[in-house]
Amino acid sequence: MAAERALAMATCTAPVNIAVIKYWGKRDTDLILPINSSLSVTLHQDQLKTTTTAAASRDFTEDRLWLNGAEADVGHPRVQACLREVRRLARKRRGGSGDSAARSLLSYKVHVASENNFPTAAGLASSAAGYACLVSALARLYGVEEELSEVARRGSGSACRSMWGGFVQWQRGERPDGTDSLAHQVAPEPHWPELRVLVLVVSGEKKPVASTAGMQTSVETSPLLKHRAEVVVPERLAQMIQHIQERDFEGFGQLAMRDSNQFHATCLDTFPPIFYLNDLSRHIIALAHRYNAHHGHTKVAYTFDAGPNAVIFALADTVDEFVEVVRRSFPPATNGDQFVRGLPVGSATLPQELVAAVVTEPVPGAVQYILHTKPGPGPQLVDDPSQHLLGADGLPRRRT
Amino acid sequence: MAAERALAMATCTAPVNIAVIKYWGKRDTDLILPINSSLSVTLHQDQLKTTTTAAASRDFTEDRLWLNGAEADVGHPRVQACLREVRRLARKRRGGSGDSAARSLLSYKVHVASENNFPTAAGLASSAAGYACLVSALARLYGVEEELSEVARRGSGSACRSMWGGFVQWQRGERPDGTDSLAHQVAPEPHWPELRVLVLVVSGEKKPVASTAGMQTSVETSPLLKHRAEVVVPERLAQMIQHIQERDFEGFGQLAMRDSNQFHATCLDTFPPIFYLNDLSRHIIALAHRYNAHHGHTKVAYTFDAGPNAVIFALADTVDEFVEVVRRSFPPATNGDQFVRGLPVGSATLPQELVAAVVTEPVPGAVQYILHTKPGPGPQLVDDPSQHLLGADGLPRRRT
Repeated sequence: MAAERALAMATCTAPVNIAVIKYWGKRDTDLILPINSSLSVTLHQDQLKTTTTAAASRDFTEDRLWLNGAEADVGHPRVQACLREVRRLARKRRGGSGDSAARSLLSYKVHVASENNFPTAAGLASSAAGYACLVSALARLYGVEEELSEVARRGSGSACRSMWGGFVQWQRGERPDGTDSLAHQVAPEPHWPELRVLVLVVSGEKKPVASTAGMQTSVETSPLLKHRAEVVVPERLAQMIQHIQERDFEGFGQLAMRDSNQFHATCLDTFPPIFYLNDLSRHIIALAHRYNAHHGHTKVAYTFDAGPNAVIFALADTVDEFVEVVRRSFPPATNGDQFVRGLPVGSATLPQELVAAVVTEPVPGAVQYILHTKPGPGPQLVDDPSQHLLGADGLPRRRT
Repeated sequence: MAAERALAMATCTAPVNIAVIKYWGKRDTDLILPINSSLSVTLHQDQLKTTTTAAASRDFTEDRLWLNGAEADVGHPRVQACLREVRRLARKRRGGSGDSAARSLLSYKVHVASENNFPTAAGLASSAAGYACLVSALARLYGVEEELSEVARRGSGSACRSMWGGFVQWQRGERPDGTDSLAHQVAPEPHWPELRVLVLVVSGEKKPVASTAGMQTSVETSPLLKHRAEVVVPERLAQMIQHIQERDFEGFGQLAMRDSNQFHATCLDTFPPIFYLNDLSRHIIALAHRYNAHHGHTKVAYTFDAGPNAVIFALADTVDEFVEVVRRSFPPATNGDQFVRGLPVGSATLPQELVAAVVTEPVPGAVQYILHTKPGPGPQLVDDPSQHLLGADGLPRRRT
């Protein structure tokens, strides 16, 4: 890839994913091998994406990394693992082919710049998109075309699921070396065109326990997590794949809610206990159940990760009404016109009996904004050189 | 028992108990047979008790019941079950002995009055003490001396544990008719004289889901509850008995906290999920863990039931300091001098490094008051006739 030039550069984008069968707990913390398989929905990059440019040059004197414009520690073991593994694949690919230009490129130092199109502070899982994007950009730089989910997994477990679009399973795998712990696509994003995603970004509470540390405490102390991983998840995974294949929202939504709750139950069974749900999460959960009960079936389904934001799944024909329900339940403080972001949302008039049954305890200002999105594709190559995050001098060229 | 008199009367008191291995879920909802054994500490009646007077008279025209001075529904199925079962035991005892006075007494209508020495609104488990007391008073009235935990269980599952003092196990039993689902004493209250109990009564939030309905939803929907009942609790019960026998507070406290957390985890794994812990519970839990971490071992142990109050176990030499920690963490709003009730608590000066490490996020007014108590005896007969809650006319004679 243009290794004869003084500067080789590649830029990719990668998506965020939201698990509906949750990953929590590693059986190998170095290789990042999970105790159970998981399944996620890849979100559309029009709303949430990471962009990463990787460059190599004989003029670079050291590896360097910039995250959202600020220089960061390129020596982080997980960044180094990704770099090492992509380079290893590149060498393997070249073999003894004697391509000296490619070999030179591999010997050069790299500069990497990465940016999110959403505020990091919003607590949206950015490490999955970040590592998926890093691995994608490095692979492009070195001309690697192999399966890369195994490499992305070394950066952040859930990053391997961001290597595919649509509906993605991360298989636990059996081998101690992790070569069968891979992500693959269950269905591409056009499979279920009516599916929508609403991210309820709540007013910022700091994540109390980092997920990496938290999940290992859970593995060590929670008898319920062990049972979940060994017995419950295998059954649920097969069910969830079937619900997706059949585009059965009732089954999909119910199971997504149950699995989110069970993940948080194992956090509570951890010692000392870990709490990611707070009183506002309880409000949102109760609201979803009241809304579904009012309609007599599952119209919306919540899922919560290791943070306070809620992610709501719904079909397209439910979005306008439910967004209005959220607006009435968590009246925006000041930014009324920016309360809904992302895909367009139409206005809705709520029937009086729905308001009476569902909007029972408004909490003004608790939800900062709603991001409306949908399933989307996996990592993308950015062809337009003007979109590179690094300039011809190999340094970040703008701050978005 | 004085059946020849126009009015026979008996008064008993009974204690509250706090489970350290939790009961949640019935395998038979009519007989109230649990899916797992449980273990509790009986609290001292000087601080928390129910007093019940049962009277029978040929002049009574109907069964009547007063709770805390207000007439209540005597036809409640669980009240009727207790009444029926005590009468059945009484008949069995008399057999064909031809004691016509006793037979007459059994044919009379009853009046029952019951009162708590603590505010019902405080959300302290009063049904256990209430049914234990009802059964004790009725048994006295009819001269029944048999094992009564099986009868109390028919009123409220956990009431069977209030039939004994000290440390009490409710054995799950195996028989479908429930005759082996009984409470028995693991150790009497003088066994562990240093053990103390602090009830943190929090500002009143209504119990969102009644425990009777909640636990059956859990049985029907939570895969984790099933595993807990079948696999986890049998191991924990044996461990807890050993900790109590050895007066091992480290083991006792750790396991009590883990079991409380696991009970609430199964509530969260229920669908729709049940939440009894709120943000204040999380504060109290985090405070206890910080306090123990500061001291390097388990000095206090929390447990939460199906309500927002926290119960803290500690040894006597920890009480003064920890109460001051609670006072600093939840500064009383107005009733500063009534903040600590029950057994005396000495003053304590907190070392500055303890305050810095433990009192990190004060929440003024969140804890209404602390009740200081200790393990106590089982139901007691009240000999003094002036203490009867019913007058010579068979009606409530005062409202305390």
